[in-house]
Amino acid sequence: MKVFFNGRIVNSDSPTIKALDRGMTFGDGLYEVIKVVNGKFPFIKDHVGRLEKSSKFFKIKFEYNLDKIEAIAQELSSINKIESGELFLEITRGADTIRDHIFEKEYAPTFLEVVQPLRRIDANLWQTGAKLVTYPDMRHGLCEHKTIDLLPNVLAKNYAHSKGGYEALMFRTKNGEKYVTEGGSSSYIFFDGEKIVAPKIDNILPSITRSKVLSIARSMGFEVIERRVWLDEVQRMKEVMLLSTVSKVMPVVKIDDMNFSFGSVTKKLMTAFEEMISS
Amino acid sequence: MKVFFNGRIVNSDSPTIKALDRGMTFGDGLYEVIKVVNGKFPFIKDHVGRLEKSSKFFKIKFEYNLDKIEAIAQELSSINKIESGELFLEITRGADTIRDHIFEKEYAPTFLEVVQPLRRIDANLWQTGAKLVTYPDMRHGLCEHKTIDLLPNVLAKNYAHSKGGYEALMFRTKNGEKYVTEGGSSSYIFFDGEKIVAPKIDNILPSITRSKVLSIARSMGFEVIERRVWLDEVQRMKEVMLLSTVSKVMPVVKIDDMNFSFGSVTKKLMTAFEEMISS
Repeated sequence: MKVFFNGRIVNSDSPTIKALDRGMTFGDGLYEVIKVVNGKFPFIKDHVGRLEKSSKFFKIKFEYNLDKIEAIAQELSSINKIESGELFLEITRGADTIRDHIFEKEYAPTFLEVVQPLRRIDANLWQTGAKLVTYPDMRHGLCEHKTIDLLPNVLAKNYAHSKGGYEALMFRTKNGEKYVTEGGSSSYIFFDGEKIVAPKIDNILPSITRSKVLSIARSMGFEVIERRVWLDEVQRMKEVMLLSTVSKVMPVVKIDDMNFSFGSVTKKLMTAFEEMISS
Repeated sequence: MKVFFNGRIVNSDSPTIKALDRGMTFGDGLYEVIKVVNGKFPFIKDHVGRLEKSSKFFKIKFEYNLDKIEAIAQELSSINKIESGELFLEITRGADTIRDHIFEKEYAPTFLEVVQPLRRIDANLWQTGAKLVTYPDMRHGLCEHKTIDLLPNVLAKNYAHSKGGYEALMFRTKNGEKYVTEGGSSSYIFFDGEKIVAPKIDNILPSITRSKVLSIARSMGFEVIERRVWLDEVQRMKEVMLLSTVSKVMPVVKIDDMNFSFGSVTKKLMTAFEEMISS
């Protein structure tokens, strides 16, 4: 597989990154995952916009732009012969001359672009529904940005996987009460029988798939409420949906020992979101 | 500068790490910083022990051992002509074939070893004392391990630096009350006029310097108490000490607008710790 790294196209299997790249030593970087659908990159503008916004927040130099990034993605897609898969972007604050938390004044940021096959997802899950496993959200306070500091996410998702689940449903605790945040790499929305309920953006990612699906729901006439969702009330929800760039809209049929049905609201949103991606 | 990477000695400036190394994409790695003093590596056994313990916790394969690591360090120290500086170790869960949170069953872990000059520290600070700047502790729940998920630490330390400070003094909030945790790459202890008070290990690093200094203090006859230290009570402390592998024992003379004196307890512990390192 070929990848793009700081201006060159190299083998993913070759040495590429310097030992003291701050992505490697300090988690000092940001990323995006964009779907590749028939050689196109749905919502790439939103993803690059979010990356650029976060790079400003963390003051990491961002020397690329939408056109350049899309052109590289097309080249990689063509070289790697991947018409459907994932586009991964990463920027970091570059390599230090000696490792030190303090930023160097002059630095060349690292930019990485990868077009890879879709990760292993059982295609049946979109018909039969996913199982989730609850897990404490141990993440930092920077979760409104897609930083590469993902070890707590990795632990959550692998824990769920080890229990036969597709994803973790993470929760934080406030005054002894647990509330839903998101998954290792997914967000969740609920249908309570009347309205669509989405956990409010409060140290969780402003997910692009979530924003698209909620706008579809609103345009279909659903009332959408963004608020804290307590773990206790999840069992009373009629439908649960998992959202992410790679999972799109996926029905959830089980959370620990609670069962949910793959209902008509989920079906409607799945269909409408598929149409939005294809168009 | 030459570094050791997975069995080879390479230039720190050369491409070394694969694009999809999980250290780079997921913060899926651990590290240690060990002082280099006259070509020796004080407390290397403790550091390697902690690294090995954490690697078991995160189930990252650890294929090196103390003897190997020390032999490589000696070689790097000699090649780089660094008799006094820093030894940096890092292990990660290796490079993925395609980026996916889920662990691959077969993988070759990444092992990196760097001997570098001491980072930029104003030598006067050990005489005149350091200034700290308070900053919210936004870190994850895995701070008892030295993971490379350090972006919140990096922000804290750079914020302090931008305000003319040497380090951040981070605090978390419980029921509206702020308590001291640690620094971006340091820990703190206090002398309240009678006892040594150290923030208890509760999602903060079991620092090796801290453990050595507290054991020196006990052997000198000081009572040592490990408990939650509230930010409100810090101003009543008689002496404040900053501890880390590279800072050793450093007097703190200012935290935001609060002044402290470089007192006799700090002086005693500094001297005794220097003796311990040299011997």
